Formats: sequence, structure tokens, C-alpha cells
Amino acid sequence: MKLLQKNVCSVYGIKALGKHIGVKKGKKDFAIIYSKKLCSAAAVYSQNKIKAPAIEITKDHLKNGKAQAIVVISGNANVATGKTGLNDADKICKLVAEEINVKPKDVLIASTGIIGKRLPMDIITRGIVGSKKQLQKVNMVAESLLTTDTVKKEIALQVDGFKIGAIAKGSGMIHPNMATMLCFITTDADISSDNIKKYLTEAVDDSFNMLSVDMDTSTSDMVMIMSTNKKKVKKTHFKEALNHVCHDMAKRIAADGEGATKMLEVTVKGATTKESAKKIAKNIISSNLVKCAMFGNDPNWGRIIAAVGNSDVVFKEDKISIFLQNEAIVKGGKEVPNFDGHKISNLLKGKEVSIVVNLNQGKEKATAYGCDMGYNYIHINAQYGH
Amino acid sequence: MKLLQKNVCSVYGIKALGKHIGVKKGKKDFAIIYSKKLCSAAAVYSQNKIKAPAIEITKDHLKNGKAQAIVVISGNANVATGKTGLNDADKICKLVAEEINVKPKDVLIASTGIIGKRLPMDIITRGIVGSKKQLQKVNMVAESLLTTDTVKKEIALQVDGFKIGAIAKGSGMIHPNMATMLCFITTDADISSDNIKKYLTEAVDDSFNMLSVDMDTSTSDMVMIMSTNKKKVKKTHFKEALNHVCHDMAKRIAADGEGATKMLEVTVKGATTKESAKKIAKNIISSNLVKCAMFGNDPNWGRIIAAVGNSDVVFKEDKISIFLQNEAIVKGGKEVPNFDGHKISNLLKGKEVSIVVNLNQGKEKATAYGCDMGYNYIHINAQYGH
Repeated sequence: MKLLQKNVCSVYGIKALGKHIGVKKGKKDFAIIYSKKLCSAAAVYSQNKIKAPAIEITKDHLKNGKAQAIVVISGNANVATGKTGLNDADKICKLVAEEINVKPKDVLIASTGIIGKRLPMDIITRGIVGSKKQLQKVNMVAESLLTTDTVKKEIALQVDGFKIGAIAKGSGMIHPNMATMLCFITTDADISSDNIKKYLTEAVDDSFNMLSVDMDTSTSDMVMIMSTNKKKVKKTHFKEALNHVCHDMAKRIAADGEGATKMLEVTVKGATTKESAKKIAKNIISSNLVKCAMFGNDPNWGRIIAAVGNSDVVFKEDKISIFLQNEAIVKGGKEVPNFDGHKISNLLKGKEVSIVVNLNQGKEKATAYGCDMGYNYIHINAQYGH
Repeated sequence: MKLLQKNVCSVYGIKALGKHIGVKKGKKDFAIIYSKKLCSAAAVYSQNKIKAPAIEITKDHLKNGKAQAIVVISGNANVATGKTGLNDADKICKLVAEEINVKPKDVLIASTGIIGKRLPMDIITRGIVGSKKQLQKVNMVAESLLTTDTVKKEIALQVDGFKIGAIAKGSGMIHPNMATMLCFITTDADISSDNIKKYLTEAVDDSFNMLSVDMDTSTSDMVMIMSTNKKKVKKTHFKEALNHVCHDMAKRIAADGEGATKMLEVTVKGATTKESAKKIAKNIISSNLVKCAMFGNDPNWGRIIAAVGNSDVVFKEDKISIFLQNEAIVKGGKEVPNFDGHKISNLLKGKEVSIVVNLNQGKEKATAYGCDMGYNYIHINAQYGH
């Protein structure tokens, strides 16, 4: 695998644009990802029961497993907007399709930002005009996804004759709204629509679905993939590259979590099933108490072991080991005799923290990604009256 | 129902003590609740898989549904301490039994505080001596439960010929540790051991189990009840009083949540099942984003509706109404036309906030209790390295 400079545009036949059209004040707020030819495509969506019209439309347009373009609006989630919202999302696909000369059914749509407000359709209609000419190979598409993200998130890989690229946004908040995680992936690997859906679901399960910065509450989360199918590939190579891209994007979203000062990576080993390893890893990464402790460089294993116990997974307490930054702090369910809190606290003062729990029961493991929780989390999320 | 001044001691035949023995520095850290005669008794425990030895011992001692005393250690949870911890807890019951002249099997035990450290058995052994003489009717028992709780929590009721009293602690944190919720209830209502267990479980289900201040992670949560069985009562009256006491204690714990500036009460109405109403109410009360919004007096209904959607409960989005402080802000799944954010924000500036979600689908409802999340939450929980 070789790391390339760009993003979704690194793939032959893919162009994109990112620009300011006026949904947000003075920031890029509109993106199109376009393929010269029809792609096999798939998407994975938020499990939230309140669904964005963008998800409804995209699901419908992906029934045949094909797509040629993705349009993204940043600044307005178009959620809780009723039938009007559904019509607006549909209209945008039609207008984009007309502008770039593809079928409306082959345009997918994503929307992120304020909730409960109608999209500014006049602004969007005007903004779409002229997009065709603006589609480029190198562009600002990643920037145009950002809300309060502090860095753009993009990656491109060259792997055994094929390419894969991605852009993502996540963990930013728009007042008065919730976080949304979006990721768009392109490739030229020749993968059928059925397989691309299967592989994407598998990759998302181990990466984005193991990511917690609060985003489990979002109504608009989507991960989409489009493939031009130009290059014959080994399935295993493609799956590996797709996993790499998804994990990379998930980690970058975790590191850029709201108010985060560091990225947390929690690995649970020695479980009897992968499912139980995942459950425990997610419990730990979602624990406010663990997140606060990591912000405070506090080697507080009591909170970690409590999070381990806080699920329906059965284990033997007296077999558990816990490692912080690769230092053993708990063995056999008890604090190691030479435990040195100040030493471990110093080790926690980096940009990345590794928490490893070994249940010593079986051979399965899982990793979850997240971030610490500090004063800025409150600052970002309580700005109305303070 | 008539409110009385005291607490567990208001019940005839019950005495208690709360004192400093040296587990904590300079604060009360030891309590005994004692009944002149053997009581029917029951307890409900934390579901955490990591269990405190105190829970193991109490479960064993309650097999016959009888008890005569409760001993509480504050300052050390005696968790993750292995066989030694189990022996220590057992020894304390024996020492207390000897001191106050009851059977060891009739002593229940609870422990809250630091995790992973052995109990200071010398200090505790010395502290138990002389306790018999210190048992009183009016006492400091509620204070001795506190860790970083900011107020003591106690209640006593006179109801149709019987009395019921309670003390509780909750939401305090001891570094480096987790929150623990403890509640001890006494009554003279004549209720069989079987029924008292059943009624307690039901009351806890609707009160403490609907409470979220992070405490779902605790390994040591317990609610205990002892009855002297002196007074014949109507079962319905007893159940009503027990529910009242449990809800009152749960609300006080919520209001005193770590770093809380206000208590949140979330009611979900119009659900098809009670279970689904509970699920949604718990989702809302546990949402960091909702908690931060309430801290910021931010009428951010997007976060509330997202929390509604974030479960496996099926509902119709276009039927949902949301009320903040009894003001309708969402109807038919959409923001009310005359929504006035600044007006609602001002209404949120009290010590109690009511969030009501009406699914308008059925007749079931449920209420959850919690608190907002502000800078002090981080301050309390990240104190090691900052």
C-alpha cells in the first residue's frame, strides 16, 4: 500500500468540487463528487429512527446498486422537515443531475448541519448552476464538508493496481444541532454492487461503528462508496484497503472529536467472542468517567474495570489485565504491586492514549476509537445561554 | 401522607449511628442502622458484572429474607480486592454482630469509595468498638454516607398508621473512583419477606433505575429495606409510600449530581408500551448533548428528537410533540411556528427542568431523572493531572 497525496479525486475518472454557495456564512458548504461513468455503489446509514430525507432519497436511488454522483450540503441537515424536506432533497438531486448531465436516480445526497429548518432552496438552486465546469481533479471538496471540525480528513491509497480515496467529516457541531459523521469513498477496483455493499458494511462495522464521540445520536450519518470498476483486483486486497481507509478516517474523526485533547484507542483482547470484545470496548470508549480521567491524565483503572463490568458479557474478574500506554496496571483483577500513578499519569500526557484490556478467556479481540472529554466539550455544546 | 422530620430512625424500634472512625480524613465514614427485633428485609443490587464483596455477603445474608442491622463503610468500596476483600467484609459483619448482639447472618453490609484498595481493617475493627452505646433515635447517619455529595438525603413519612423512612447517597465521586448510589429504607409496615422484595424491586424499577448521573457504571449500588412488621397495612398504601420514598430519593440524587446546576425530569408519554417509554426517557436523560444544552439554557430540540430516535422503538416522527418547561416547542415532528428561542432559554434558567415528549401513539408513559452537564462535571472527574 502506498499513500497518495489527494483524496476521492485520486481515482481515475473521478472529479469533485467544494465551494461556498451561501448555506453557511462565508464558509464552503457545498460539494459534488462525480464519476465520468456509472459506478457500482453502496451506502451504510445511521440507525437513528429519525431519518434525514437525504437518507431516504439515497436509499431509494441505491436500490439498483449504481450511482454516478454524490451531492453534499453542509450547514443544514434537512431533518425534521416533513414532506417538504423530502421534496427539497429530491429536487436537489434533479437539479444536480441536470447540471452535470446524469440521471437523477444516479445522484446520492447527504446533508449535515442545523435541524428542523427548511433548506434555503433559492440559494441551493443558484449554487448548483455552473457546477459542471467547476469539477476538478484537485479540489477543496474535503474542506466543504466541515462544520466545526478543526481539520479536514482525507486519504488516498495506491494498492496492487487499484486506487482508493476518501474524505470524511465528523464530530463537529452546528448550533443548535448534533454531530454528524459523513464519509465518501471512491475506488477504481472492480467490485460488483452486491459485494461492494457487503464489504462496506463489514469495514464500517469494525471502524465507524466502533467510534464514539457522541455520534451515535446523529440522524444523518452516512458512509458511501462509488467504484468505477476499471481495475481487476483480488477481493482480499480490496477488503484490506477498504478497511484501512475506514479505520484511518474513523481515527481522524476520533482525534478531532468535540473539545478533544487526545485520541483514545481501546482494545479488548482475550474475549470468547468478537461480539463481547466489541461490547466491552464500546463501553469503555463511551464512558464519560473514563474520558474525563484521560483528559486529566488520571490512571484511574477503577473506572475502566467498572466499564468492563457494565454489560451483559460474562467474564472472570480475577483474570483481567489492564494496560495503559502498554504499561500493565492491573493483573489478575488487582492493581499491580508496583503501581506508580505519577509515572502512568505522565505517560498519558500525549496526543494518543492506548487502553488495552485482556480478559484472558478466549482469542477474540476488538478495538474502539474515541477521545477524551474536557472543558471544551462543555464549551462547544452549551453555548446558547452561557 | 405526612412528611416527618427525620429519616430511617423515625420508625419505632430503629436506631442508628453515623460517625468518623478514620477510613476518610476528618469526615464521617461509618454508619450502622439497627432494629430492636429481626426484620423482614430485601435488597436490589447493581447489575455491574464486577461485584463488590459487600454485595456478595449481603445477598448471602438475605437468603432467608431477614435482617436486623446494616453496616456502611464510606471511603473505600472494597472492590477488585479478591478473596481478601470478601473475607474483610465477612469479618466486619461478624464484628458488628458481636458488638450489637445480633447474629452475623442478620447483618447486611454496604461499602462505597476508593476501588482496588484493601479496607483498613485495624481502623474499622477499632471503630466498631463502642457502637452499641452510640445507637440513637436522632443521629448523623445520613451525613456519614456522603462522599462528594453536597447535601444529605433523607426522608420520613407517616402514612395511614405506619411509618417509612430513608437515607441515601449518590453521585459523589471519590478519587480515583466511580459514583455509587446507596439507599437504606426502614418501615414498620407488616410486609412479608417475599412481598417486600417484590415491592422494592418494582419501586426501584421506576425510580432509581430511571436515574442517570453516570451511575449505571457503579459496581456497588444497593437499595436495602428492613421492616419491623409492627403495623398492619393495606398493601396498596405501602406500595404507594415506598414508591414516593424511592422517587424522592432518586430526584434528590439527580439534583445533587456531579457538577450539576439543575435537575432534569424527562417524561415520555403516548407510548404503546411502558418499556418503550422508559427506553426513550432514558436515552434523553443520558444524552451528553441534551445535558450540555440544558446547562447552557439552550432549547435545542434537535438533540432531544435525535435521542428519541436513538433506540429500537418504532414511532411516527410526524406525531411527536416536545415540551420544555411546559411550553410546546415541537408539534407534529416540526418546530412550532411561533418558536421563541430566547423566551424558552429564559425558562430553562431554573433549578429544575421538565422535558416532555409525547409520541401520540398510545397510553403508556415513563419518567427519568438526571441533571445537566457543565464545567464542574469535568472538574470533578479529571482532577489528577490538571
